[in-house]
Amino acid sequence: MAERKRVVILGGGFAGVYAAKYLEKSLGNKDDFEIILLSKENYFVFQPMLPELISGTIGLLDIVCPLRPLLPKTNVQSREVESIDLVAQTVTTSHGFRAKPHVIQYDHLVIALGNVTDFRGMRGLPEHAMPFKNLADAIHLRNHVIRALEEAAIEVEDEELRKQLLTFVIAGGGFSGVEVAAELNDFVRTVARSYRGIKASDIRVVLVHSQGRILPEVSESLGNFAQKILQKRGVELMLNTRLDAATSEHAILANGQIIPTRTLVSTVPSSPHPLVESLALPKNKAGKLKAKNTLAVEGFKNIWALGDCALVPEPFTEGFCPPTAQHAIRQGKTVAHNIVASMRGGSQLAFDFGGLGKMGSLGHHCAVADIMGLNISGFLAFAMWRAIYLMKLPGWGRRLKVATSWALDFFLPPELTELKLAASSGIAEQHYEPGEEVFHQGELGDRMYIILAGRADVIRTDNGVERVLAQLGPGEYFGEMALLQKATRNATIRCTEPMNTLSIPQKEFNVLSSSLPQLKKSFEQKIETREEKSAATKVG
Amino acid sequence: MAERKRVVILGGGFAGVYAAKYLEKSLGNKDDFEIILLSKENYFVFQPMLPELISGTIGLLDIVCPLRPLLPKTNVQSREVESIDLVAQTVTTSHGFRAKPHVIQYDHLVIALGNVTDFRGMRGLPEHAMPFKNLADAIHLRNHVIRALEEAAIEVEDEELRKQLLTFVIAGGGFSGVEVAAELNDFVRTVARSYRGIKASDIRVVLVHSQGRILPEVSESLGNFAQKILQKRGVELMLNTRLDAATSEHAILANGQIIPTRTLVSTVPSSPHPLVESLALPKNKAGKLKAKNTLAVEGFKNIWALGDCALVPEPFTEGFCPPTAQHAIRQGKTVAHNIVASMRGGSQLAFDFGGLGKMGSLGHHCAVADIMGLNISGFLAFAMWRAIYLMKLPGWGRRLKVATSWALDFFLPPELTELKLAASSGIAEQHYEPGEEVFHQGELGDRMYIILAGRADVIRTDNGVERVLAQLGPGEYFGEMALLQKATRNATIRCTEPMNTLSIPQKEFNVLSSSLPQLKKSFEQKIETREEKSAATKVG
Repeated sequence: MAERKRVVILGGGFAGVYAAKYLEKSLGNKDDFEIILLSKENYFVFQPMLPELISGTIGLLDIVCPLRPLLPKTNVQSREVESIDLVAQTVTTSHGFRAKPHVIQYDHLVIALGNVTDFRGMRGLPEHAMPFKNLADAIHLRNHVIRALEEAAIEVEDEELRKQLLTFVIAGGGFSGVEVAAELNDFVRTVARSYRGIKASDIRVVLVHSQGRILPEVSESLGNFAQKILQKRGVELMLNTRLDAATSEHAILANGQIIPTRTLVSTVPSSPHPLVESLALPKNKAGKLKAKNTLAVEGFKNIWALGDCALVPEPFTEGFCPPTAQHAIRQGKTVAHNIVASMRGGSQLAFDFGGLGKMGSLGHHCAVADIMGLNISGFLAFAMWRAIYLMKLPGWGRRLKVATSWALDFFLPPELTELKLAASSGIAEQHYEPGEEVFHQGELGDRMYIILAGRADVIRTDNGVERVLAQLGPGEYFGEMALLQKATRNATIRCTEPMNTLSIPQKEFNVLSSSLPQLKKSFEQKIETREEKSAATKVG
Repeated sequence: MAERKRVVILGGGFAGVYAAKYLEKSLGNKDDFEIILLSKENYFVFQPMLPELISGTIGLLDIVCPLRPLLPKTNVQSREVESIDLVAQTVTTSHGFRAKPHVIQYDHLVIALGNVTDFRGMRGLPEHAMPFKNLADAIHLRNHVIRALEEAAIEVEDEELRKQLLTFVIAGGGFSGVEVAAELNDFVRTVARSYRGIKASDIRVVLVHSQGRILPEVSESLGNFAQKILQKRGVELMLNTRLDAATSEHAILANGQIIPTRTLVSTVPSSPHPLVESLALPKNKAGKLKAKNTLAVEGFKNIWALGDCALVPEPFTEGFCPPTAQHAIRQGKTVAHNIVASMRGGSQLAFDFGGLGKMGSLGHHCAVADIMGLNISGFLAFAMWRAIYLMKLPGWGRRLKVATSWALDFFLPPELTELKLAASSGIAEQHYEPGEEVFHQGELGDRMYIILAGRADVIRTDNGVERVLAQLGPGEYFGEMALLQKATRNATIRCTEPMNTLSIPQKEFNVLSSSLPQLKKSFEQKIETREEKSAATKVG
């Protein structure tokens, strides 16, 4: 027997999983090659149904499929990929319970790492916008929305905060953003009935889109239909503008509008996986790997790229394949054939799938679909949407579970359980715009802050009169006094120039300052200096 | 109309929720008092079914009920209670999106805060034992077990680590521990079939119990039956000993046995909620609030205690009520009657419920039950268990969901999805016993460590020869060099005296050392000093 070849697949999305599935088929009962699939998660997410998680129409785990039963002949390893060495032909994964490097040699490398939400360079977005890409994002958004409703129900005095809490902003009017807006709107308006003191009229759901109409992927008539449906259900559309910046309290649009909100979801922009960025392989401007129509990366015979991280020529146009599940699945089939052909001998196939159509759910038993050029909308499109995706789900068990959840959803109210799993929010970065307050005099002290960029004023209010005590800039910190002395804030911190801060919560602060004496000492020296400067100007 | 009285209930478990439910009944269409219920979570967990979450027999959210729809006339506030002022008659809750103190005045205070898992004073348990008390604990345990299987499947070289990963230890052989052991054993042995390279014979599930037989709550014959069932399914019993200490790699028993494991669950011990501890109210030695048979706290007329945090006299014996759901529910009814009586006038009722029986599930369609003195075991007990708890679930929607999940579970395989929601593990404490290594020369550096107590050796291995470079004690730190210089560990750290450390992960370390220059400087000075001491003795 010749030496056993090894195919290593990076990524557990549609492209990677279907590549492995078709490779398993070719493997049959032979043993001439082995398949290793590396995936961050040990499950495969059925992405098109992710927005349904927000409203809880389907169970939390209904749309995820554990990879192992799905790929019985593949060696699935659930770890992050740390680095790729194209010369040595190795992949190194991050460590597990012990910090040992784990190196895997490959004969063929299939790169199907997909893309990631990328807020870099956008003011305040990395700190305050929520992505909507994977299972954790969906559950996090759902929890955040429930928390906002819980707090709005308690908040009876501070009308401004209440307004922020009950406003939900979604940026991006493509399929993904529209589905999120529709599901979030349905969910919030339904469960709000359980909250005493929250009226339907208090709730705002806003969809921001850069073009003149939403759903640029489909025809104008379908786009207009979707707009009317959303507006009828209470979604506000803000068209021809886009999200420019974000703080913990505001969404700031390019047209100058400022929306007070505590919940900001952005479905744009995305860029290829950071690992792809680090590879010396041919890429386009957006960073996608240039693949030939055989899905081999240009200039390579044993490196393959497919799915959302790849630029694959469309067979019937001059353009490139869109990032959809149907394309990824067929690319998986093509790449499996070509890898087997280059190992066992045989001719390479060109990718020749042109797409079947597009569908998007609008929630509430309504959808739009463009199937082979046919425009369908309303309940019929919704029924098709469900039927098609149900049959696409891998395995009858999964289909049964999802169908059952859908059936129960027809007559049961949605759940509003807040699933708090993460312990504390830990050390975090925040962005502030001029005029915003980091904290207010008299509030409880729960964090200290270090200014990374920008400026803020320290303001004391006595008998209703405001006085600026000091101006703070990069490298300076504040808020530690309330933590060290367990008192309420004795001043207000108000941003004067766009500011980024790093904040350390009480618990981490206590732990660090008690175990690192030099840290505590320097905080105390700072406080002493401030106290000397002015007996009445303590900043905490 | 007289002034509206306010009843504030602390706690959203069986006791608190049923107190609110019966108060709502008495309120009817009147408006002479209002009910506020403060609960950490916005849902109520049906505790008896919690172990079923491990195996995924039921959906993640099937056994939790959102509080608001359950208690439509109650003002539910989902926040932690910060403090109670018995003199001013106020309760202060923790803050929400803004850090303002929120103070609530009460006329009647119902304390139903339950108890918490309390590992204080037990060597290594606070750091390394997993509690099993609430929804987050159950999901955390499930994820941890799946992660251990994932890593065991990858680990082919390090036999010692593989053994640790495939050993699961449960401490406590009461109902709670037995149910966890049974479900965990079923789950691990079933899903392991999906993992290539994990054999059933590699798996160990160990139940540690301090007495001569498990299930001290029921008769000897039922206890023996349960023992036989568990052993037949592969659970190892270690009786007449208890968990003495824990590290990240070992469970150490009082009889000297050391079990290598990465998964240690302890269902004992528990103590009343920390807030109860801080109150100047009559308590017994274990810290439980002394209640009269009217459920008023001894010496008070408007403070009431019930559920697991209270010591309530049993009506027909000299003893006190056990901490079960059936008692908590009836106590809720009694307290509601007595509060209404003291507001509207009327006589106080004494708590007079003696308990109906005890039931415990052994998984795999098997259970034990002691109903009114009748011993039942096997499938009949299991069917009764399910039927009784199903009818106890609040609401038909919930019952339908759980029944559906049970039905699907009969012919669908269990899920093995690892639901990673928390981002990083953050700053953490660890415990080490003599001989254990914190890290090994040549491993990747991902954390730095500060010694809080105990001692360790710094060991360099050259050409197979070990040399002790230095001894470290409290207040000293190590491991920062690999982080600052992005290198692998250049020495091994081995514990010599029982040691507690605080570890800071790479990410938090980078953030802190770049924003707090004095911190970075002191680390660098330390490294320089070490380098001067010996050119060849760098510790990273």
